[in-house]
Amino acid sequence: MRTAKASVLENFKAPLVTREFPLPENVETGAALVRTEMAGICGTDVHLWKGELPIKLPVILGHETVGRIVELGEGLEQDWTGQPLNVGDRVTWNSTVSCGQCYYCAVKRQPTRCPQRRAYGIGYRCDEAPHFLGGYAEFHYLRPRATIFKLPDDLPTESVIGAGCALITAIHGVERTGIEWQDTVVVQGAGPVGIAALAVAKSAGASRVILIGGPKARLETARRFGADEVIDLDQVREPAARLDAVRQLTGGYGADVVMECVGHPSAIGEGMEMCRDGGKYLVLGHYCDAGPVLWNPHVITRKQLQVFGSWSSEPRHLKAAIDFLRANQERFPFAQMVSHRFTLAQANEALQTTARWEALKSVIVPE
Amino acid sequence: MRTAKASVLENFKAPLVTREFPLPENVETGAALVRTEMAGICGTDVHLWKGELPIKLPVILGHETVGRIVELGEGLEQDWTGQPLNVGDRVTWNSTVSCGQCYYCAVKRQPTRCPQRRAYGIGYRCDEAPHFLGGYAEFHYLRPRATIFKLPDDLPTESVIGAGCALITAIHGVERTGIEWQDTVVVQGAGPVGIAALAVAKSAGASRVILIGGPKARLETARRFGADEVIDLDQVREPAARLDAVRQLTGGYGADVVMECVGHPSAIGEGMEMCRDGGKYLVLGHYCDAGPVLWNPHVITRKQLQVFGSWSSEPRHLKAAIDFLRANQERFPFAQMVSHRFTLAQANEALQTTARWEALKSVIVPE
Amino acid sequence: MRTAKASVLENFKAPLVTREFPLPENVETGAALVRTEMAGICGTDVHLWKGELPIKLPVILGHETVGRIVELGEGLEQDWTGQPLNVGDRVTWNSTVSCGQCYYCAVKRQPTRCPQRRAYGIGYRCDEAPHFLGGYAEFHYLRPRATIFKLPDDLPTESVIGAGCALITAIHGVERTGIEWQDTVVVQGAGPVGIAALAVAKSAGASRVILIGGPKARLETARRFGADEVIDLDQVREPAARLDAVRQLTGGYGADVVMECVGHPSAIGEGMEMCRDGGKYLVLGHYCDAGPVLWNPHVITRKQLQVFGSWSSEPRHLKAAIDFLRANQERFPFAQMVSHRFTLAQANEALQTTARWEALKSVIVPE
Amino acid sequence: MRTAKASVLENFKAPLVTREFPLPENVETGAALVRTEMAGICGTDVHLWKGELPIKLPVILGHETVGRIVELGEGLEQDWTGQPLNVGDRVTWNSTVSCGQCYYCAVKRQPTRCPQRRAYGIGYRCDEAPHFLGGYAEFHYLRPRATIFKLPDDLPTESVIGAGCALITAIHGVERTGIEWQDTVVVQGAGPVGIAALAVAKSAGASRVILIGGPKARLETARRFGADEVIDLDQVREPAARLDAVRQLTGGYGADVVMECVGHPSAIGEGMEMCRDGGKYLVLGHYCDAGPVLWNPHVITRKQLQVFGSWSSEPRHLKAAIDFLRANQERFPFAQMVSHRFTLAQANEALQTTARWEALKSVIVPE
Repeated sequence: MRTAKASVLENFKAPLVTREFPLPENVETGAALVRTEMAGICGTDVHLWKGELPIKLPVILGHETVGRIVELGEGLEQDWTGQPLNVGDRVTWNSTVSCGQCYYCAVKRQPTRCPQRRAYGIGYRCDEAPHFLGGYAEFHYLRPRATIFKLPDDLPTESVIGAGCALITAIHGVERTGIEWQDTVVVQGAGPVGIAALAVAKSAGASRVILIGGPKARLETARRFGADEVIDLDQVREPAARLDAVRQLTGGYGADVVMECVGHPSAIGEGMEMCRDGGKYLVLGHYCDAGPVLWNPHVITRKQLQVFGSWSSEPRHLKAAIDFLRANQERFPFAQMVSHRFTLAQANEALQTTARWEALKSVIVPE
Repeated sequence: MRTAKASVLENFKAPLVTREFPLPENVETGAALVRTEMAGICGTDVHLWKGELPIKLPVILGHETVGRIVELGEGLEQDWTGQPLNVGDRVTWNSTVSCGQCYYCAVKRQPTRCPQRRAYGIGYRCDEAPHFLGGYAEFHYLRPRATIFKLPDDLPTESVIGAGCALITAIHGVERTGIEWQDTVVVQGAGPVGIAALAVAKSAGASRVILIGGPKARLETARRFGADEVIDLDQVREPAARLDAVRQLTGGYGADVVMECVGHPSAIGEGMEMCRDGGKYLVLGHYCDAGPVLWNPHVITRKQLQVFGSWSSEPRHLKAAIDFLRANQERFPFAQMVSHRFTLAQANEALQTTARWEALKSVIVPE
Repeated sequence: MRTAKASVLENFKAPLVTREFPLPENVETGAALVRTEMAGICGTDVHLWKGELPIKLPVILGHETVGRIVELGEGLEQDWTGQPLNVGDRVTWNSTVSCGQCYYCAVKRQPTRCPQRRAYGIGYRCDEAPHFLGGYAEFHYLRPRATIFKLPDDLPTESVIGAGCALITAIHGVERTGIEWQDTVVVQGAGPVGIAALAVAKSAGASRVILIGGPKARLETARRFGADEVIDLDQVREPAARLDAVRQLTGGYGADVVMECVGHPSAIGEGMEMCRDGGKYLVLGHYCDAGPVLWNPHVITRKQLQVFGSWSSEPRHLKAAIDFLRANQERFPFAQMVSHRFTLAQANEALQTTARWEALKSVIVPE
Repeated sequence: MRTAKASVLENFKAPLVTREFPLPENVETGAALVRTEMAGICGTDVHLWKGELPIKLPVILGHETVGRIVELGEGLEQDWTGQPLNVGDRVTWNSTVSCGQCYYCAVKRQPTRCPQRRAYGIGYRCDEAPHFLGGYAEFHYLRPRATIFKLPDDLPTESVIGAGCALITAIHGVERTGIEWQDTVVVQGAGPVGIAALAVAKSAGASRVILIGGPKARLETARRFGADEVIDLDQVREPAARLDAVRQLTGGYGADVVMECVGHPSAIGEGMEMCRDGGKYLVLGHYCDAGPVLWNPHVITRKQLQVFGSWSSEPRHLKAAIDFLRANQERFPFAQMVSHRFTLAQANEALQTTARWEALKSVIVPE
């Protein structure tokens, strides 16, 4: 019986531990076994580690993963786009799968809210077979109906992991919000989601993107990704001053679209005021429940706003992301987001580097 | 010099007083003088009386008015729809006028946010000529560029005033939100805006409208206007119980569209939970600033909501309202909303009846 | 071995013939066997019979069917909406099934254009097992993944068949086009699709629907379904006169939305002129290729039109149709559309009655 | 009495002749007199010269003009965006003005279809004062309510005239059609409208634009403006071959959006087939009536298309164009489109150069 290693979250807030589990003896119909090539550390992993989301332990974290196919189950012959799949192919996949049949999938066409969804790296215990259902491991098992994408040879793994789930989250969010040609856009936040939202906005027709965040290194990344203006949180510390700055940059009116990529409830009130009247606000950073905040709903009426929420993403967003990353490696160098690399044995350190906001993007390379 | 009477708000929270002002000697080019036939009391008038909005006194309140043309200024020959205007015609008009040229009017097509807007019955002092710029008076002066609508003979004045600014507010709000064919809709609130939102939703394709509010008499009106279900606030006192009730009526999912017509910030959090995932929420009742509330923005992301705000209305909404009222007198009997009538001398009593929530709609008939 | 009867199209333009085929010995996993209760004759069946569509013979026609479940394959426990399915349940179903995975289903969300679709009553030869894949037969086999809907007891079979595929076609078409609250609508055509489009438009917010068609009996049906105005093709014979009539009924401008439910190419140019400038045109009746027509595309630019096409429908449209039919039996009496009933042995006569335009809706009741 | 020269179209198909007219003695309230700096020759001018549009002669052609203010009427103190206007300012303007009050302007928000519109260079006889209402002249009179835009110093006149009315036409057309992020787009036509549509599409989120046209020099311009692929009409002569080429470049499906910028009716049928199913088609080149064509409307249904028309443009499009030109002089070098320059005396030659398709853009520089 073959076994393989994984880094396991056994207790919240305790260090990840390396464990060995048996590899599946045979791969089910429609499933696949993949050797992990690179796994990204997402900010959500930090929240999971702290026990801020209701998950069952033990878990192998990691929902941003690239690997090479080791074994293909019967009937799994094509990737999600119809390309042939073979052992040895380098692939990535969506961390969740919608059922396609339920009220949300089929009647209301909101498949990201399908109650059947369960995410790799989050929603599966690893003490039950097939064990390998998270990225921080030597292997990853892809269950039947997984939506798999063969990666083109000219797209580096670093690009895919550097973009991570932040990019597909941003693509979905911007799609729901709708950026019109030549809109001015404010991005609140300079983390991976903020940088991704910036890239999508710039390529979606925005005439000008103002990014608010910090620290300095991230703002330089934002500049590198085409931010027209940056507002440094360390320099412009008061919300009123930031609002002033945005108004000055937008003819006194505020921006057409403001996208929250922060995750702190206090950003919401500030961001809505940054919209011009009749503008749009996207709540993109509140995947986790960060608690309530004092907020005045009168702003919605007074400024005649539209506010959009967006949960996770669909396979078509991952397809679009891969095409986009491939075509824009120069303009939007997501590969450069990978700032810290660790071995599987160092997985805990990788996670802590992200928790301490030291890394723009930490990754695990199991080898 | 001719004079006429008006009921004037001279001090906040003090009784309205009857005053006499000179009528304009001549009517400007493009303007008109109208003899007031009926003036509606709007809930906003109560807020104005209490000093909750930043206005300059003295003011003649009243922004929902029907009158007959007494004098027409040079060049004013047609109403907003192109019908000929003559002395004696019964007319109504928008309480505000947008400039048509500014950033909000012309570039962003959000004319309700035009900074030039100033409302009859709210934004004009009455101690300056032409004095008569509010409804609680024997006459009303219509300034140049006012958007005037000649009323068809078969549409009673009671219908127009019974619908009041609530109907055009609801029409604009529903337009911004978009009700899809066969949507289930929840209306929070049984005041004039709630009843109007119900009527618009029912006629805009909703398969089912659930109205939440009180007291009993208003719920009976809601039934009369076609509410499929009503939830009585006096009987279902807990937000959690109301949420349960809505879920039971919507297959466990929540409604496609929820429309807030309450004006209390606490309604917002409750109402958003009543939306199905991927649903829409309209903040329609927050014309006044009723202060902040503890609220968790995570709901926007988790339920993947769309939230819409809507400020005031445009002339085209008043045109649509007139056509709608005329064609639906049986189905949506807005004339029956007029529950209390007062003379101009009784204007203060009319206002207090509204303030005490005794009237569905109080009106002043100057005679 | 059990057998059952079907009426078979063996040669184009030749009479249908009754044949006997073996019933499936066992029902596959996820499939079902249904005893036909009523089968509708659709105008498309006439086109199929004439050989105007590229199908392979022999075929059992009939894609509008209601039946009772006789046998359920393993795993088929719920209908499309999640209701439990049992032997004896009265059901209907979509005539086609999309794959859910392909470019059109998943990337572009146009599942009606899925290349995997193959329609019962059109796309399956009946000389191969399981034979019973059309409505004109004693039994109907539902293949795995069929989208089945249990019918509520208070919804008569006549309503479902009376509405037929015309209703779901109209629901999809109106959804794509979008009727705004209080729009004026013109429907070109008084056949089943025209009547269904009228019903959907009236319930979707149209203030006024003008229907153009004939003969007289159908126009009476249109009136019964709420047409505000009808224009009789037998009386207003010239396109220019019809255009005049529409303009007179719409303030000289034309309608906000015009919906073609005719199927003759000549209706297109006439209908586009009936739109107001900036209006919308829906091409709904051109499911079959009726050949080219002389047409001037300048009208699209000059009138600044939007034109929409719509192909077939999705399961969610059938769900909506069932809910709609059930809730509106009085307002839109689709059951009364069933004008002619035939036994299975009379299937050819049923088809010819439809071909000769004698029936509003012919049906087959096998017993 | 001061006079000035203009080049006048006195008889269709006859050479333009230079005439002298009196300059207005005083400029009306709200009007302005401008000294022409550069006037563009538009393809429409050729149609006008040929008598293909119903205009009254004599006319000073020219509806794409930049000039410097010589005299300002009373009350004209700001440009359309609120910037102060002074004598000496370099300005451009919309060739038409909508009334802002009518059914199309105010009720239906389709101001380009306002019946009050009358275009400089097209709709005004020049034998009546104020004579100078077209671009081919030493001076241009701007009537009250003209929508004037002060040009920023860093935006060359050549950019504005090089873009001409083609750019604002394309901006409006793309706005109506809606390009989604990463859409593939086909542009039919390599004239000024095609090049402008390409620029707008590329900057509006298209992942890839395929341009079909000729001759070679224009295709090089298309490449310079970012066309990802060009299909040379001189090399790929058969419609079927062009359709094949588009399909091969789009994964076999066709493009998400196809934009017709040709003006020949035959392009329509070809272009619609180039759309993927569920795709969008923009008819942008049919400003003139080029007659009917044999066309099969079945394609609309079968491919489930959306088709959009777009007439002229609004002031906000000109504002957007100026901002866009200024910010993208490197990426989209519209100034380089100006290929031929002529004096006012050579106006007829300028027009003929355009008529003979020799110029990408001819311009007149009066002195």
